[in-house]
Amino acid sequence: MLVAETIGEIRRNVRQARTEGKTMGLVPTMGALHAGHASLVEVARARCDHVVVSIFVNPTQFGPGEDLEKYPRPLEKDLELCRAHGVAAVFAPTPAEMYPREKLTWVTVEKLTTPLCGRSRPGHFRGVTTVCAKLFNIVGPDVAFFGQKDAQQAVVIRRMVADLNLPLEIVICPTVREPDGLAVSSRNQYLNPQQRRDAAIIYQSLEKCRTLVEAGARDADEIRAQMQATLAQVPALEAEYVEIVDAETLRPVDPLAGKVLVAIAAHLGATRLIDNISLDIR
Amino acid sequence: MLVAETIGEIRRNVRQARTEGKTMGLVPTMGALHAGHASLVEVARARCDHVVVSIFVNPTQFGPGEDLEKYPRPLEKDLELCRAHGVAAVFAPTPAEMYPREKLTWVTVEKLTTPLCGRSRPGHFRGVTTVCAKLFNIVGPDVAFFGQKDAQQAVVIRRMVADLNLPLEIVICPTVREPDGLAVSSRNQYLNPQQRRDAAIIYQSLEKCRTLVEAGARDADEIRAQMQATLAQVPALEAEYVEIVDAETLRPVDPLAGKVLVAIAAHLGATRLIDNISLDIR
Repeated sequence: MLVAETIGEIRRNVRQARTEGKTMGLVPTMGALHAGHASLVEVARARCDHVVVSIFVNPTQFGPGEDLEKYPRPLEKDLELCRAHGVAAVFAPTPAEMYPREKLTWVTVEKLTTPLCGRSRPGHFRGVTTVCAKLFNIVGPDVAFFGQKDAQQAVVIRRMVADLNLPLEIVICPTVREPDGLAVSSRNQYLNPQQRRDAAIIYQSLEKCRTLVEAGARDADEIRAQMQATLAQVPALEAEYVEIVDAETLRPVDPLAGKVLVAIAAHLGATRLIDNISLDIR
Repeated sequence: MLVAETIGEIRRNVRQARTEGKTMGLVPTMGALHAGHASLVEVARARCDHVVVSIFVNPTQFGPGEDLEKYPRPLEKDLELCRAHGVAAVFAPTPAEMYPREKLTWVTVEKLTTPLCGRSRPGHFRGVTTVCAKLFNIVGPDVAFFGQKDAQQAVVIRRMVADLNLPLEIVICPTVREPDGLAVSSRNQYLNPQQRRDAAIIYQSLEKCRTLVEAGARDADEIRAQMQATLAQVPALEAEYVEIVDAETLRPVDPLAGKVLVAIAAHLGATRLIDNISLDIR
């Protein structure tokens, strides 16, 4: 497995694989790899001959006061996971390799980036779309793989790829969960044991929604109130949003109909967690 | 010569040429092709095996009240010029082919787009960079060719390509001029005979600058005053800007030093004309 720190190295690796007629898959990550990333790699390996994992804690998607500095960077452990899952090459650039000049060029997606996480993280998605455009241009994959856990990111990146005619396919893979339902996330390791137990309430709140919908509920405000009540069982948890939105436009839907995204962002101490489920309501 | 109206068609054409091992050149244009475009094609043909010309009057780079509607679209004549110069394929999409959805995604370049033409044409460069990113992604050229006449555009696109790691080279070709010095432009045909004669003063003003610099002048304000005085010989001409800026940062330089761009925008009746020269001052 190649570990490339420079754009030139990873491009040479990919070009060589191309000349061998191989199809190319990219799994963009910020490292601190876990079972969720492993499942992305597995899907990528099933779809593509040559799988590249990028590991880059992208500074431009962190806001002031966010966890850029303390974000975990266990590179050796990450490389082991990649080796174990048959990754062909890891692209692990430094910030200076990715941003050698003053940052003047941005890729922005309007409207889809303003609700949900966009409200509390202005500039976050601009950082995500710009770095993803860069990674796509550097690696040139046929397919890139993202997790459904970052649902808004998935919608935004799909839209960017369509709007800019980027020549690749975006595949969104299901959220991987702990036995108690908590979505696997690199940020879970920030939680102390009590917070870790408390965090399961987020998925319980999402499941509450599913149960209500299966029982016939369609009124968004009523459902959200019950989801909020579920979250309130953990007083230490501070809900940032509990939203039910159209899965494509991310606009609120009320009454619930069609493909909807049910999404929660919540804080446990200094840790911000997000999770979501999709429902197809006929 | 293929004339492709859809993204699918031009991509198939380019993919076929790629399998034949050909290198790919793109000359992005808004049509109304003239000797300037022809020279871009000639340079492209000398550099690349397979030259694609795109012809697309991009609505998103025109502001309200600008000449989007009346911009000339002589497609048959354009195709003839392309055929005569050995173009392999023309990509001439409709606006609906290029923008099938609400326009949500934008590529923006900060700072470089605010001076010069950016002051009077807010949003113009955002339209240019976004459509160029799309064209680059659709055609996938090794090299794209632009004219030095649109000097700020050239600087902005170079920066976008570098910042987003777009896998292509940008080549800037010299401005082609009429015998009286007027830079060849699709918009020259808007001029009536008197305006056409008057328009030559723009290049004379630029040459005035060159003469002054060759004689040792370095004070930007003094030089600009003399350039303005030259332009004032044509009372019908309204100068929008007369600027001397660093050729890379586009920031004003005073005293003149290094690589500078001397740029003019001026109005003759309803027609806006731009021109520039580059000087390398040691």
